[in-house]
Amino acid sequence: MNTPSEHLMLKALRGEQVSRPPVWMMRQAGRYLPDYIKLREKYDFFTRCETPELACEITLQPVDQVGVDAAILFSDILVVPQAMGLEVQLIESKGPFLPKTIANQNDLDALQVIGAEANLHYVYEALRLIKKELNNRVPLIGFAGAPWTILCYMVEGKGSKSFDKAKQFCFSQPQLAHSLLQKITDVTIAYLNAQVVAGADLVQVFDSWSGMLSPQDFKIFAQPYLEQIAAAVKGAPVILFPKGSWYALADLSKSAASGLGLDWTIEPQFARQLTNNSITLQGNFDPCKLLAPIPEIKKSVKEMIDAFGPQRYIANLGHGILPNIPVDHAKAFVDAVKEYQA
Amino acid sequence: MNTPSEHLMLKALRGEQVSRPPVWMMRQAGRYLPDYIKLREKYDFFTRCETPELACEITLQPVDQVGVDAAILFSDILVVPQAMGLEVQLIESKGPFLPKTIANQNDLDALQVIGAEANLHYVYEALRLIKKELNNRVPLIGFAGAPWTILCYMVEGKGSKSFDKAKQFCFSQPQLAHSLLQKITDVTIAYLNAQVVAGADLVQVFDSWSGMLSPQDFKIFAQPYLEQIAAAVKGAPVILFPKGSWYALADLSKSAASGLGLDWTIEPQFARQLTNNSITLQGNFDPCKLLAPIPEIKKSVKEMIDAFGPQRYIANLGHGILPNIPVDHAKAFVDAVKEYQA
Repeated sequence: MNTPSEHLMLKALRGEQVSRPPVWMMRQAGRYLPDYIKLREKYDFFTRCETPELACEITLQPVDQVGVDAAILFSDILVVPQAMGLEVQLIESKGPFLPKTIANQNDLDALQVIGAEANLHYVYEALRLIKKELNNRVPLIGFAGAPWTILCYMVEGKGSKSFDKAKQFCFSQPQLAHSLLQKITDVTIAYLNAQVVAGADLVQVFDSWSGMLSPQDFKIFAQPYLEQIAAAVKGAPVILFPKGSWYALADLSKSAASGLGLDWTIEPQFARQLTNNSITLQGNFDPCKLLAPIPEIKKSVKEMIDAFGPQRYIANLGHGILPNIPVDHAKAFVDAVKEYQA
Repeated sequence: MNTPSEHLMLKALRGEQVSRPPVWMMRQAGRYLPDYIKLREKYDFFTRCETPELACEITLQPVDQVGVDAAILFSDILVVPQAMGLEVQLIESKGPFLPKTIANQNDLDALQVIGAEANLHYVYEALRLIKKELNNRVPLIGFAGAPWTILCYMVEGKGSKSFDKAKQFCFSQPQLAHSLLQKITDVTIAYLNAQVVAGADLVQVFDSWSGMLSPQDFKIFAQPYLEQIAAAVKGAPVILFPKGSWYALADLSKSAASGLGLDWTIEPQFARQLTNNSITLQGNFDPCKLLAPIPEIKKSVKEMIDAFGPQRYIANLGHGILPNIPVDHAKAFVDAVKEYQA
């Protein structure tokens, strides 16, 4: 059995030589897996998140069934606004809805910050249980949403094509926006550190909507908070995934993060160039390409690894797996990485 | 009165020296203008498009009321699938819906290609009327959707977050996809040339969903068709707007296009660098930033022009204007360009 430090994921994040790149898939736990869909029919979303046994079962499914090199906690980024005191409803196939949104100083003052991470005790219980069940087969990934992305939901109250309400909030009340971003950051740091204590071997920060920001606005409303988090998480490597924000890669490669996630709109070689080959990169297979025939998937995976190079690299999708992906296609993706020969 | 060739827009597209950059706004005709909203209450979308007097009135509104340097035809990119024989429904605030989509060779064979542009006679009538009413105050922009974007709607049947059905079609049946893309391209070229004959002084091709494609897939499914169109439109300059596809700017700067549109996620200086300063660039103000206070808008416009430089540049938004923009904010954007001093 491997010692934890010998896992491919952790070696790749430390920049150590690996025999082949490790592989996992964003949103690998859930959605497309028939066993998950069965659980979904019996328990609503937050029951699945908040019941450690269910979260554990769902987290382990892709490890057992698809053969990924890491487990990622089954949860949601919106547990943080919940922990801070905002109600979050998650309606299946409709997306999140926050009945009360943040618009002014009073709303901000009502948020819990100090000790808010303790409200997420069920996450730590789940992590401890998963850790035990994994028995060190693969490392365990914890995660949180990035402050900008969490702000988007807190202000907008739901998903959006342009998040114009969230952006208007930032552009017209920048002081208030920064105050909110700092509160989210503080809770997120405490939350991620508690995840590490509970057993997460590494953590990923999802900035799902950072690509809505111009490069200048990313520097103002997203980057400083990502940098704070990367520097403040202790005892586990951090991967930052600023989706759509290829323009920020050079700056973020100089942060305290150990890895950067990439979506599929950036060429691997260009990402290496922007990051001066100084940080581990993760990504960036177009999730829709898992709908292609299996031989085409395998060919594209090989091309992707060739382009990134097999070292300092974690194979992954460029965004979450789609619900309509056949399991054997997901498995073909994972297998292609495992079979990789330069 | 100006002769047509003296218009700032056309000079900028030819790379000639201008006294200040020209300015217009994507989707400037409609949406946020109170006089448009009144017409919308009386006539449905296709009545507004297909009645030359209404299309003319709507096209002229932003010229008269906001002071833009160009008029853009009020119409929709989905008139092309309509002209090819597919029903398109446009439900206000719900987006487009195509009851019959393209899935196989039979569907493709049923599409009209030769002469399909003649079905859009009402567009040419509108252009002739607008041209007369404009009386050469500002140039008139015609437009069409890019083949990839039109394929997205033809295959998917509606808007989508990931256009996975359209991408699956391309990835699993590439020959069929290319056949469809070529048919759309042929109709689009005939359509744009007919727009020029009817009075369009320049045309823009909107590839609204090109940013969904990886750089490699853009090269396969989008770029060749954009290049064909840019080369085949005669008698008027062409602006290509591949939204989200910053990675294609270098290649497209070598096409026959006269201008490239940019969204707000690319820094002006980097766009200049990628295009080797060899082509006119258009954009790229974050449409959400029009929700900022007016002094902030004016400051950001000045910074944008400074960054692009005032020559070989057309000031615009990075995407269509949002429906919730106050008219005086839109006007502040236009005024800030007109007041620009280096």
